[in-house]
Amino acid sequence: MGQDTKYIVGVDLGGTNIVSLLMNKRGEVLERDARLTLAKEGRERTISQITGSVSAVLEKGRELGISPDSLLGVGIGSPGPLNTKKGVIHFAPNLPGWREVPLVEILTQKLSMPVFLENDANAAALGEWWKGAGRNTSNLVLFTLGTGIGGGIIIDGEVFHGAWDTAAEVGHIIIHEEGLLCNCGTRGCLEAYASATGVVRRTVKAIKEGRETILTDWVQNRLEDITCELVYKAAQKGDKLCSWIVEETARYLGVGIASIVNILNPEVVILAGGMIKAKDLLFKPVREYAKRYALKDAIEGVSIVPAELGDDAGAIGAAATVLKRKGLL
Amino acid sequence: MGQDTKYIVGVDLGGTNIVSLLMNKRGEVLERDARLTLAKEGRERTISQITGSVSAVLEKGRELGISPDSLLGVGIGSPGPLNTKKGVIHFAPNLPGWREVPLVEILTQKLSMPVFLENDANAAALGEWWKGAGRNTSNLVLFTLGTGIGGGIIIDGEVFHGAWDTAAEVGHIIIHEEGLLCNCGTRGCLEAYASATGVVRRTVKAIKEGRETILTDWVQNRLEDITCELVYKAAQKGDKLCSWIVEETARYLGVGIASIVNILNPEVVILAGGMIKAKDLLFKPVREYAKRYALKDAIEGVSIVPAELGDDAGAIGAAATVLKRKGLL
Repeated sequence: MGQDTKYIVGVDLGGTNIVSLLMNKRGEVLERDARLTLAKEGRERTISQITGSVSAVLEKGRELGISPDSLLGVGIGSPGPLNTKKGVIHFAPNLPGWREVPLVEILTQKLSMPVFLENDANAAALGEWWKGAGRNTSNLVLFTLGTGIGGGIIIDGEVFHGAWDTAAEVGHIIIHEEGLLCNCGTRGCLEAYASATGVVRRTVKAIKEGRETILTDWVQNRLEDITCELVYKAAQKGDKLCSWIVEETARYLGVGIASIVNILNPEVVILAGGMIKAKDLLFKPVREYAKRYALKDAIEGVSIVPAELGDDAGAIGAAATVLKRKGLL
Repeated sequence: MGQDTKYIVGVDLGGTNIVSLLMNKRGEVLERDARLTLAKEGRERTISQITGSVSAVLEKGRELGISPDSLLGVGIGSPGPLNTKKGVIHFAPNLPGWREVPLVEILTQKLSMPVFLENDANAAALGEWWKGAGRNTSNLVLFTLGTGIGGGIIIDGEVFHGAWDTAAEVGHIIIHEEGLLCNCGTRGCLEAYASATGVVRRTVKAIKEGRETILTDWVQNRLEDITCELVYKAAQKGDKLCSWIVEETARYLGVGIASIVNILNPEVVILAGGMIKAKDLLFKPVREYAKRYALKDAIEGVSIVPAELGDDAGAIGAAATVLKRKGLL
C-alpha cells in the first residue's frame, strides 16, 4: 500500500485517564478509546490499560479495513520527568511507583511495533501546532493551566526539549521573587499564582481575611469546596472579590507570558485547561497585561489564543510524535 | 587554494568602538583593528569607520600573505532591533539617526564581498560557544551585564532568533511584577535590578535612605560618581551596605537564571560584562541562588561561568556568523 494509507496511534497517559486515538497521516481521528489509568493499582495494571487501549483502537480500525501492518507506530504522551531519547520515565508524581520505567522498551515488546515517548505537555503543544490553535505557525508556546501550570515549546515546527528534556517548564518562571510558595519548593513561580490551585488559594485567603463574596453562600461556608470554576462563575455574575481575583490572575499570566515572549519570540501563545472556558473574561485582560509587560517589538503580532483540541491535544500530539521521529512531518 | 586557507572578518559595531578581527576558519585571530564609531558624526561617518576598519585588517592580512580572494566574507555584530535575514538595522539606541538602515546591502557594495548581519549579543553568545566559555557545548545562554542586560541563546549550536529576531531579551524577564521601573517602560525586569545601572541605582537609593557606607567617602559625597565597580570594590573591602547590595544582586540574577534554566534547559549559563571581574564575590552567591530557585532536574549539571573572550566576543561571534551562514560551522 502507498504512503497515504499509513496510520498512527497516539496515547495520552494521564494520572486519571488514558486516551488512545487511531489517526491517519493527515491528522484525522478515525477511532478513539478512553479508559481509566488505574494508577493506584500499580505499574503493571496501568501498562496493561495502555496496551488494552491501543488494542481497542486497532481492533476498531480493523473493522474499518485498517490492517495492523499499515501502522507506523505508537506515540505516548506521558507525565515526567522523562528521557525522550531513551524512552524512560524517570518519575511521575501522579503514577505511584513509577521510577525509571523503560516504557518504550516495555511497550515495543508488548505491542510489537515502534513506540515513541514524549512529555505530555510537549505532546499537547505539538498537537496544537499540528491540528489546533497553532497550525500554520512555526513557533509557539503552550501554557496548560490546571492543578499546576505545564507547558510546551515548538520552535521551527519541532518540539523544543533543551539539553536533557527538562525545557518548557513555563509554570516555573519566577514572576515575583520571594513571593508565594510553589509546589516545587521555590517561591514566586507563575504556577503558585495563576494555576487553578493558585486561583482557589488566593480566593480562600482573601475570604479568610474578611473579604465578602457570593462564593461563601454558594459553598455554604465550606471554603474547601471552592473551585477555580466557581471563582470564574462568580466573576461572570459580577462578584467583586472574584472579579478582582480574575483580574489579578490575568495580570500574573500576562507577566509570565511577557517574559516568555521576550525570551522566545513566538508567533502564538496558546492557553489550555479548564480556565479557558472563561473566554474573554480571561483572554481580554491577559492580552492587555502581556502587551503592557512585554517588549513592544516582541509582543506586536503575537496572538494569545485558546487551545482548540481540548482533552485530545495530548493524544493527537503523541500521534504526531510518531511522524516527527520518522521524519514524516 | 584549499578550504583551510580561507579567512573571515568579524566586526563588532558598538556605540563607542568598532572592533574588527581577521580570523582563520579554526577561529584563530590573525589581525585586529579597533577605532571609534563616531556615532555622533552621523551614519555615513560610522559606515566609513566600519569599512576603514575592515580594510585595515585586510591590509595587515595582506602583509601576512593573505589575499582578499581568500576571504569568505564579513560578519557584523550590531545593536538592534534588526532583521538578520534582510540585513537591515531597524533602530539602534546608541547610533543616532540609524533607522531602517540596509547595512548588509551598503557594506556588500562598498566591500565587494559577502556580508552577514547578527545582533551583537547573539554574536557574543556565538563567539563564546565557538571559542570561549561555551565551547564543547550545544546549548547555552549568555547574559551581558552592562548598562543594560542583553543576552544570546545558542540551541543545538545555532543562534536562536525566534520568529522575528527579537528572542533572547533575557534582561527583560520580569522577576518582580509591579517592581522597579525598567528602561523599557515596564516594571520588574531583571535589568532594572541587576544591570550595572541597577546596582548603582539601588546603592544610591539606600544611601539616600540613610544607610552608611565607605562609598560616600570614596566619592566625597558626590553620589553621581558611584559606579558598579566601586560598589563591588567596597564589598570586597567588607563594606556592609555594598556587601548587601552585591548579595541582593546575586539573588536577582539567580532568580532570572532560574527562570531561564526552567524554560530553556541549557548546559551552560555564561555571564559577561564588567561585573564579572568581581569573580567569586558574584559567582558564588549567583550559583547558590540559581540552585535554590530553579527546578532540581533542570539546574543540576548546569555550569554558571564567566565569559572568556572579553571585549572581543562580539567580533569573534560576528566572524563565526559568516561560517554559520555558509554552512561551514
